[in-house]
Amino acid sequence: MASDSPRAFNFSAGPSALPEEVLRQAQADIWSLHGTGIGILEHSHRGKTFDKVLFETFDALRKVSKLGDDYEIILMPGGATVQFALLPMNFLRPGDRAAFVDSSIWTRVAYEQAVKQVPSEYIWSAKATNYDRIPKPGELPDCSKYAYVQYCTNNTVEGSQFDGPLDVNAPTICDASSDIFSRPYDYSKHAVILACAQKNLGPSGNTVMFVRRDWLERSNDISPILSFRENAKAESRLNTPNTFGIYLIGVMCRWLLAQGGMDAMGKRNAEKAKVVYDAIDNSGGFYAGTAQPWCRSQMNVTFRIANHALEQRFIDEATLLGLDGLTGHRSVGGMRASIYNAVPLKACVALADFMREFQRKNG
Amino acid sequence: MASDSPRAFNFSAGPSALPEEVLRQAQADIWSLHGTGIGILEHSHRGKTFDKVLFETFDALRKVSKLGDDYEIILMPGGATVQFALLPMNFLRPGDRAAFVDSSIWTRVAYEQAVKQVPSEYIWSAKATNYDRIPKPGELPDCSKYAYVQYCTNNTVEGSQFDGPLDVNAPTICDASSDIFSRPYDYSKHAVILACAQKNLGPSGNTVMFVRRDWLERSNDISPILSFRENAKAESRLNTPNTFGIYLIGVMCRWLLAQGGMDAMGKRNAEKAKVVYDAIDNSGGFYAGTAQPWCRSQMNVTFRIANHALEQRFIDEATLLGLDGLTGHRSVGGMRASIYNAVPLKACVALADFMREFQRKNG
Repeated sequence: MASDSPRAFNFSAGPSALPEEVLRQAQADIWSLHGTGIGILEHSHRGKTFDKVLFETFDALRKVSKLGDDYEIILMPGGATVQFALLPMNFLRPGDRAAFVDSSIWTRVAYEQAVKQVPSEYIWSAKATNYDRIPKPGELPDCSKYAYVQYCTNNTVEGSQFDGPLDVNAPTICDASSDIFSRPYDYSKHAVILACAQKNLGPSGNTVMFVRRDWLERSNDISPILSFRENAKAESRLNTPNTFGIYLIGVMCRWLLAQGGMDAMGKRNAEKAKVVYDAIDNSGGFYAGTAQPWCRSQMNVTFRIANHALEQRFIDEATLLGLDGLTGHRSVGGMRASIYNAVPLKACVALADFMREFQRKNG
Repeated sequence: MASDSPRAFNFSAGPSALPEEVLRQAQADIWSLHGTGIGILEHSHRGKTFDKVLFETFDALRKVSKLGDDYEIILMPGGATVQFALLPMNFLRPGDRAAFVDSSIWTRVAYEQAVKQVPSEYIWSAKATNYDRIPKPGELPDCSKYAYVQYCTNNTVEGSQFDGPLDVNAPTICDASSDIFSRPYDYSKHAVILACAQKNLGPSGNTVMFVRRDWLERSNDISPILSFRENAKAESRLNTPNTFGIYLIGVMCRWLLAQGGMDAMGKRNAEKAKVVYDAIDNSGGFYAGTAQPWCRSQMNVTFRIANHALEQRFIDEATLLGLDGLTGHRSVGGMRASIYNAVPLKACVALADFMREFQRKNG
């Protein structure tokens, strides 16, 4: 196997970098898992070998999340957007209204899925300042009339991030897709927490959900396979689940626990982000971050070059040097360095070095 | 890498055996795809490398299916059951009725998803003879009042199989999950063809759909991510898709084409099935197939030992010899040998040899 061929520094926003030890484990287990002579892709989802995989994944998710037994863990197929559409279907009743905090493209995508089903509203928007921030304390209205308020903890495209749970007088749905388990966070303040896997949890095509049991119990009676309650009852294998995804989420979570969990990742990610933000802040205006400094993201560093005409050259030269995936989201342009849990400090150092060198040559 | 450690013969009903050359390819590409230094799990779904993967998968599916441009190919997250729930949501209008051919547990699962949304009926059932057969010509009623009739080409649990498209006077939905591309089949007789991937197409967690364009065009206006039309328009990446699944379906389809496609697989699968059915039919009643011989499956050989008390010993001894996954579905008991496209002839020969030896010792 080609496990020694050179690897790039991968700053992709998702799917994104995975730890090399996780990739090596997956390579071995694709051939034969636990000495069975059958690979993880080929094992029955009802067999004893996969039982162990599934329960180890649940166990690792429970441990790293620090959530108690009042939350069910559900492993749903599809990305977060699929769950955005299933949330109103499962939890809203005739007359209910859903609310969204418009801090990012992803809450707008969530709104678009919901509004086809139920009355949906934005309670706040960052549009006026080009999505450069999150709401400040006191800016959010009375929310008592909403069945839930959905927000996104980290804004992948815009480069902003909440520093704690949304504080409103309504149940909240927490979309933690792009920063789950990247720092200490009190997930227990939410009715539902969800995260697609392809940033901090493994491969694309799966979403991890934590749903408060009382919410599941009072959920709607819909087509069983679309019901979070029925999926929870069946331990996320009401039908054949994405067995490889469930396996890899487990491997990733055990890797996270071995690194020290959310607390250790928080320290490490702060250090990583500082390396890149320092290269921006100390550039004398050559580079500029796009989010306001008080709420900028530790996961997605979004920035521009004051002279926009240099940006494509920046990206091309970086790519040639093995610094990959730095193109900003197609809706905003510029550059974006996604530095999720699996991206090592040395990648951030290499990027910052390149940024300084590029500025020296082009500044 | 442990690519030389011993492998079992895997008769699992799904997830199921994959060709060893496909597994070796996946192992390499998990580390670095196309020399990029970034593995398939880590590549952006919007990057050029994944563009190539996606379009090669579409291209291979188009070639092997022999379907023309009047069908769109959609790669949906989730298994077939998820699509069972989305079919009525996408295609049925107020007053429409859906119909199902009750030849298997999977059409009943499909009925259960649909009936929560629209009036749904069975037009035929094999219940009276314990699901040992499919309908014969002339047994099906007038179907002109139904918006569609859904059937399952191969009945994984019951061991029966249709020998050609369902012949009714209504549009048909073809669930080919467990025998797609296993033999020549005229898929163009259907409005929709769907197949979850974990039998003949790769890993679990994905469903391949072929949908006639005119059906997509007149489909309902629902939450975009649940809409087949919107997913088709976005080339199956309206959100981040299951990139690894899409990749592996492509590798599997190219393997299928290299084997000679549906025609060659049909001959090979007939030969494989004959080896196992001969061991049953020549056992003088020691073994008995559970489906009627005229409609028995080339994919799932379901059988019992006349003395049921011997069945657990059969399964245990087979497993010890590296013949794995022979337990019948939990709803019916007995034995089941799933011999999908990737199961080699030598596995069927090894099973038949074991069956004769077991009979000699216990007969």
